[in-house]
Amino acid sequence: MNIPLGAADHQWMARAIQLARQGLYTTDPNPRVGCVIVRDGLLVGEGAHLRAGEPHAEVHALRAAGERARGATAYVTLEPCSHHGKTPPCAEALVRAGVGRVVCAMQDPNPLVAGQGLARLRAAGIATAAGVLEPEARALNPGFISRMERGRPFTRLKLASSLDGRTAMQSGESQWITGAAARADVQRLRARSSAVLTGVETVLIDKASLTVRAAELGLPDAEAQRAAQRQPLRVVVDSHLRLPVSTPMLNLSGSTLVATAMPDNAPAAIALSAAGVQVLSLPGADGRVDLAALLPWLAQHAQCNELLIECGATLAGSALRAGLVDELVLYMAPTLLGSAARPLFNLPLEQMAQQYRLQLTDTRQLGDDLRLTLSCRQDDN
Amino acid sequence: MNIPLGAADHQWMARAIQLARQGLYTTDPNPRVGCVIVRDGLLVGEGAHLRAGEPHAEVHALRAAGERARGATAYVTLEPCSHHGKTPPCAEALVRAGVGRVVCAMQDPNPLVAGQGLARLRAAGIATAAGVLEPEARALNPGFISRMERGRPFTRLKLASSLDGRTAMQSGESQWITGAAARADVQRLRARSSAVLTGVETVLIDKASLTVRAAELGLPDAEAQRAAQRQPLRVVVDSHLRLPVSTPMLNLSGSTLVATAMPDNAPAAIALSAAGVQVLSLPGADGRVDLAALLPWLAQHAQCNELLIECGATLAGSALRAGLVDELVLYMAPTLLGSAARPLFNLPLEQMAQQYRLQLTDTRQLGDDLRLTLSCRQDDN
Repeated sequence: MNIPLGAADHQWMARAIQLARQGLYTTDPNPRVGCVIVRDGLLVGEGAHLRAGEPHAEVHALRAAGERARGATAYVTLEPCSHHGKTPPCAEALVRAGVGRVVCAMQDPNPLVAGQGLARLRAAGIATAAGVLEPEARALNPGFISRMERGRPFTRLKLASSLDGRTAMQSGESQWITGAAARADVQRLRARSSAVLTGVETVLIDKASLTVRAAELGLPDAEAQRAAQRQPLRVVVDSHLRLPVSTPMLNLSGSTLVATAMPDNAPAAIALSAAGVQVLSLPGADGRVDLAALLPWLAQHAQCNELLIECGATLAGSALRAGLVDELVLYMAPTLLGSAARPLFNLPLEQMAQQYRLQLTDTRQLGDDLRLTLSCRQDDN
Repeated sequence: MNIPLGAADHQWMARAIQLARQGLYTTDPNPRVGCVIVRDGLLVGEGAHLRAGEPHAEVHALRAAGERARGATAYVTLEPCSHHGKTPPCAEALVRAGVGRVVCAMQDPNPLVAGQGLARLRAAGIATAAGVLEPEARALNPGFISRMERGRPFTRLKLASSLDGRTAMQSGESQWITGAAARADVQRLRARSSAVLTGVETVLIDKASLTVRAAELGLPDAEAQRAAQRQPLRVVVDSHLRLPVSTPMLNLSGSTLVATAMPDNAPAAIALSAAGVQVLSLPGADGRVDLAALLPWLAQHAQCNELLIECGATLAGSALRAGLVDELVLYMAPTLLGSAARPLFNLPLEQMAQQYRLQLTDTRQLGDDLRLTLSCRQDDN
């Protein structure tokens, strides 16, 4: 029972997508979802999912609409759920409210339940449609979709470089290549991520904390406070367990996971565990952490949707070569650091045919710097 | 006798600037100039300078206006000339036509004659004003202005690189990093330049021709044909005169100048001269060509307004270190060539304090590639 769609349907869905963005920094590990309820061309209720455990977008919108939901059209950015999670199924709530029509932007990305919410609605005699502004709706939740569809997080690699592709002087000196606006943007990338991954060198040498700091987000105060309440999981790749128990990061708000190639019962692993740090042993064939195994682990055991990698050239090169980077976010400062400075990626290639060709999806100026966003996914090419 | 200016004056000057762009590829070594004549709020004549030796913009516009120029306002992007060059002075023509008012965007950039055209007009009782849309008018003629004000060309350094700041594989393999749209843009940069400068290695190894090719300009046919009629002077920096007399470039349309650190009477210099190639001996303290002396030479002896440098990392690094680059035009392809590939600049720096900080003035997407334009001039910072 598919229904004809018009320009108004797209406009209302655009509003629902706008609402969904309210949850950008807070719904994790749930998806960001928005809902609008319209009757006789008038908006009668709207809502967004804001935090896991709190009501879904449909519930907020139905509450606002009250009796006016009867016979109305509900626009939802994601297929309403049909199963009992932390909250009752939204499909049931829509049926009970008596809506006449439900338009979704996309089906549930979990292939095991996709279509069940719509089926439940249709079984109750409600007209349904899906696929309205689907690309825009998918862009709200690259991580949740990746976790459901591929069993791994959506992985962003963030790097900051000069025009000549250098991240630091040979000595390691690097603060600051980019300006305050670019650094605030990195804070917002962290805040929307489920986890932030780095190498042990970055923690030991650059004293990286990987935390979200409300004052540095460049967001309105109330939004910044909400965003900083949830700290992304910090994942430190530390093949040989060189991270001391005394590392300041381990005492910061939020949790740290150390991925290592050492066995669980190594003395350093036991010491870290005793200090409350989760240690995950994932030895790879080369005696280093098996990054390709770490990503599915994070999806399955840490409900990791979006993973931000902030690291040096070695780990960046390894992640890229292993095909683990979905998106490269490159902050480029209008400066030249010279040919002796450190490269973006440790990536020894010999022929043009070996080049890593990416696809530019966005360019933006941030203060004096440029932000380039590039898709690394072969299926996007 | 300055006159009050209004919004209409700016709009008419904007039209004059638009007209001046018609000469972008053809007026060299003259400046690009446009002129609009307006009477009682109506356009009565307009024109642009198109080619050296042909009438100036004011003459075209006055001819179009005829008797209607009497009492009208003339908008000119550059102060009308007061001296006899290849054509009679435009200030006289405006006086004879009886215009009532002359508005200029900028004074003559030659400090020795600046203001004389306006003074001649005022002496004839014509009201004058200058400075309307001056930044836009200056942007039409960065080279002509630089030659007049600084006695050297406006120098653009063009480079093409990957995201990680590499111009070629270690082997030298580099074709093609950027796509057709970026390469057409380089053709247009050449076409607007008085001269194109490169190193002998680029000619010997990359077989660079440095010519403007009508079919590759990406312009409408007639405009492309006109643009390609004039070939920029090719300047090859060849400290030790390694360029063979048999080099194909020497037989292409247009002229080639070889700048060397060898004496004029070296056998190789004599051989090149005998083949009709101009050889310029400019030895520097380091036994290489004195680049800092070459630029004023090109301004004074070759009327070089805009100089395009297309070269490898060594010459690029030397030009940058010597402070000879006014603008960097960087074509960046969305690809990674890896850490073994060749750098943008041979530029050995040790500390962040030594970095070359530039100013981003334009970002544009060309096909899959990005074009970044950056000002290198310290006085712009």
